[in-house]
Amino acid sequence: MNKYQQKYNKYKELIDNRISFFIKKDEPVSLYKPLKYILEAGGKRIRPVLLLFACEAAGGKPENAVNAALAVEVLHNFTLIHDDIMDNAGSRRGRDTIHKKWDSNIAILAGDNMVGLAYKALCETENVNILEIVKEFTNGIIEICEGQSYDKEFESRNDVTLEEYLLMIDKKTSKLLETCAAIGALIANTGSEKYNALKLFARNLGLAFQIQDDLLDILGDEKKIGKKKGGDLIEGKKTYLLLKALELADKEPDKSLLVKIVNDNGIKINIDNTIAEVRRIYLKYGVVESAEYEVERYTKEAEDYLSVFKDDDTKAMLNWFSRMLLGRSF
Amino acid sequence: MNKYQQKYNKYKELIDNRISFFIKKDEPVSLYKPLKYILEAGGKRIRPVLLLFACEAAGGKPENAVNAALAVEVLHNFTLIHDDIMDNAGSRRGRDTIHKKWDSNIAILAGDNMVGLAYKALCETENVNILEIVKEFTNGIIEICEGQSYDKEFESRNDVTLEEYLLMIDKKTSKLLETCAAIGALIANTGSEKYNALKLFARNLGLAFQIQDDLLDILGDEKKIGKKKGGDLIEGKKTYLLLKALELADKEPDKSLLVKIVNDNGIKINIDNTIAEVRRIYLKYGVVESAEYEVERYTKEAEDYLSVFKDDDTKAMLNWFSRMLLGRSF
Repeated sequence: MNKYQQKYNKYKELIDNRISFFIKKDEPVSLYKPLKYILEAGGKRIRPVLLLFACEAAGGKPENAVNAALAVEVLHNFTLIHDDIMDNAGSRRGRDTIHKKWDSNIAILAGDNMVGLAYKALCETENVNILEIVKEFTNGIIEICEGQSYDKEFESRNDVTLEEYLLMIDKKTSKLLETCAAIGALIANTGSEKYNALKLFARNLGLAFQIQDDLLDILGDEKKIGKKKGGDLIEGKKTYLLLKALELADKEPDKSLLVKIVNDNGIKINIDNTIAEVRRIYLKYGVVESAEYEVERYTKEAEDYLSVFKDDDTKAMLNWFSRMLLGRSF
Repeated sequence: MNKYQQKYNKYKELIDNRISFFIKKDEPVSLYKPLKYILEAGGKRIRPVLLLFACEAAGGKPENAVNAALAVEVLHNFTLIHDDIMDNAGSRRGRDTIHKKWDSNIAILAGDNMVGLAYKALCETENVNILEIVKEFTNGIIEICEGQSYDKEFESRNDVTLEEYLLMIDKKTSKLLETCAAIGALIANTGSEKYNALKLFARNLGLAFQIQDDLLDILGDEKKIGKKKGGDLIEGKKTYLLLKALELADKEPDKSLLVKIVNDNGIKINIDNTIAEVRRIYLKYGVVESAEYEVERYTKEAEDYLSVFKDDDTKAMLNWFSRMLLGRSF
């Protein structure tokens, strides 16, 4: 196994183990049971591992960053719980979502409490930059909420631009990755050069990751992506692909089909055929190509920021993380 | 006008003014419009004023505590938004609640974002104890969530004890007041004696306040309490009064009526007559008397903690706050 993969696994295990011990309380049962249910459900722990990698890359000791890593994972899970309520999602990581297994009130409260618990873990970080760390974390929460708000607003709008879409994913997806990198760097107490480089690395990676996620919806293997192919299309989600296709498809009946999906808020009938048809449109007008180009461009931009690291091993580690995140090293 | 009332008004105005300028953003509109809607709706601003009073009492400068005061008010409003969703409440301060005026998703997100904004305001406090302040605030959030969880759990249980009820209101109501007092004291950088005294003062005041609130439901003037008399009974809320009555009412048909209200989760038919009947039961078995005694006892306990303040004016100011909170000085 690749040595960076080994490191990833080691850090992931560290987080998995700590997370079980993190919640010591059992009562109120209606609060702590759902909370443990989601935290112990696993997941790739991408965000806390990124924080630990960033800390290490910036010359810090990852063991001093474990509480902060826990905090970002707990925060991420809070967003999943509340997003699942808003999206009316029934399953997550192969299990019922909290609001489905219990109810929305319980899911709202479990999420709310997790924000508190995330700050609690974060504040256990012993570091000279603790106030900056808390501020960084706080800005992360605000941006995530803004991103999710845009995402929900877009559902009922049919004039969303690609630019707006990029702003939305920047806030909803990239910002938390950027926060992880920033906090890792702050714990390492590095200078602004590495701090900024790590932030921009993570941010661009987040954008690449999200557009890649949009691509997988139409190109991916259902088993691998863990959801139905074309699911975004069925729901009428304004993805990079759909918005780009609306820009590029100037011929009929292609254009009308796309407009219909937007106006209908998704695909209601003749689902499989329509998905195949849209896939054909995406290929015909170079939409898939354009998305692939953007993923590559953001990934490259991310990796270019790593030039501030003179140490080859550090650079290789972060490059590995980038490629792993985009599913190219598994 | 009483000089403490003048001080209260001055501080309240300070908060009201700052709150309008605090939210600088307008977009996403679906996030910031509801948020401004609730923050600008007014309210008594009890919590931020308590924080400023506590800071002053502990020898600090209230002007250094304004950001923290703003933070507790924003946090309090977050709890109102989410509680209103959970309680399916249609109005608040004479206006539609956010989830009613917009929808639940918007209300969830507005609340979530307010937690972030509250921390943002808090972290603008320039103080040597900032980490302690953030920790105190964080514990406050966790306890409030636990309190609200118990409150929701109690709705579907018919074996709630008075002891459990007290634990619930301690977390749901008292804890935030305690947090305000603690943060005020920390900003003043006072010693542990005044810090502890202020915390215990606020905590006991919170308990008195909540039991008083339960009492007002059955005894209060509808116009003054701003909701329908007997509203708690109609909803079957396990208040101090109802739980105490269940303990004390040993005769029929009194006992059966109370049990029926608990089992039916409130009063469904013959509402006004039933409320009058329960009121009679509360008076007959000394339940009202018992609640009044508890309010007085907790208030006295709160005020006893003020003995550490040697300065008469400080003591008088906090005593005034206590009596004002319990509605005895207006």
